[in-house]
Amino acid sequence: MEGLNHAHHNDELNIRIAGRGGQGIIKLGLFLAEASVLEGKNVVQTQSYGPEARGGACRTDLIISNGEIDYPGLRRIDVFLVLDQEAYLKYSPILDEKSIVIYDSDLVKPDRAKHIAIGFPFTKKAIEDFGNPIFANIIAFGALVAITKIIKPETALYVLKKRLKKFQEENLNAFVEGYELALITPKAVA
Amino acid sequence: MEGLNHAHHNDELNIRIAGRGGQGIIKLGLFLAEASVLEGKNVVQTQSYGPEARGGACRTDLIISNGEIDYPGLRRIDVFLVLDQEAYLKYSPILDEKSIVIYDSDLVKPDRAKHIAIGFPFTKKAIEDFGNPIFANIIAFGALVAITKIIKPETALYVLKKRLKKFQEENLNAFVEGYELALITPKAVA
Repeated sequence: MEGLNHAHHNDELNIRIAGRGGQGIIKLGLFLAEASVLEGKNVVQTQSYGPEARGGACRTDLIISNGEIDYPGLRRIDVFLVLDQEAYLKYSPILDEKSIVIYDSDLVKPDRAKHIAIGFPFTKKAIEDFGNPIFANIIAFGALVAITKIIKPETALYVLKKRLKKFQEENLNAFVEGYELALITPKAVA
Repeated sequence: MEGLNHAHHNDELNIRIAGRGGQGIIKLGLFLAEASVLEGKNVVQTQSYGPEARGGACRTDLIISNGEIDYPGLRRIDVFLVLDQEAYLKYSPILDEKSIVIYDSDLVKPDRAKHIAIGFPFTKKAIEDFGNPIFANIIAFGALVAITKIIKPETALYVLKKRLKKFQEENLNAFVEGYELALITPKAVA
């Protein structure tokens, strides 16, 4: 894949990550923000929490740019990573036909008429290979990095190593698994 | 003090927290967001990071509300907690005469003509009582909770206990110190 240079204008990439509370969505956004800053980029990150967030849909939005960012909200979404159907329904109205949705293929049924869609079995892989669905977010992180090329994989691994002391080896392996998964299945693009 | 019921309309409190990279500003915002959600509130949190954030000014904005929040940015600031002069200069233009600035009295020189200002020696206290300036953010958190009454102190302590495993006792004590500091010095209000 060519990366998403065609998808962002003004060197700015707008990313939304969404799922259910407990899937590690906000954390993923924080890791991506930290890694982007380490590569010299500017980042504005917004997350919403509500009483419904414990188990319900939650999301984080990131604007990642080589230049200054003056707007606090997303104008449009270049890439939407989503791990839950309810979150997909709640946070997808803003998508357009150029938006790329990276989704958990066992948990989300995307509307392919409305946007580009690339599915991977993140949660299934997490259970099969690490015995626990909690690693799905890090596998998805790997796929997101492989597809967007917004940061180098080694920067992501550096941040994961720094931030995740528990199950560190599993998390690093989960990232690499997701990264390779996305590199070798470009045909999944609708 | 009466709390800030006079300062927020529609049951919504707009809080900005700012300082230098390394002062634990973003973390403080995350703790406040988590505690607010535990009390059944909705929260939208935005943080900016840039290459300058490592050591330079950084900030996080929170909208905390009993109802739905539809706007991703701050309309105005009810309360501005600030631990660094550069951050004060960079992020204070949006303040108005009803905004309340809670600041580190050794590190920030606020323009009292423009807003309400309440100063405390957060960093000095952290060094004197805990031997390390890194506890200044948690002392400031205690003061912020005491002044705004946006969450119960026990909810804040619950979140700190859950999130901070390193120096946990010091952090809990730092929170209580800040909370009591703000309760007993209402005369500091300009």
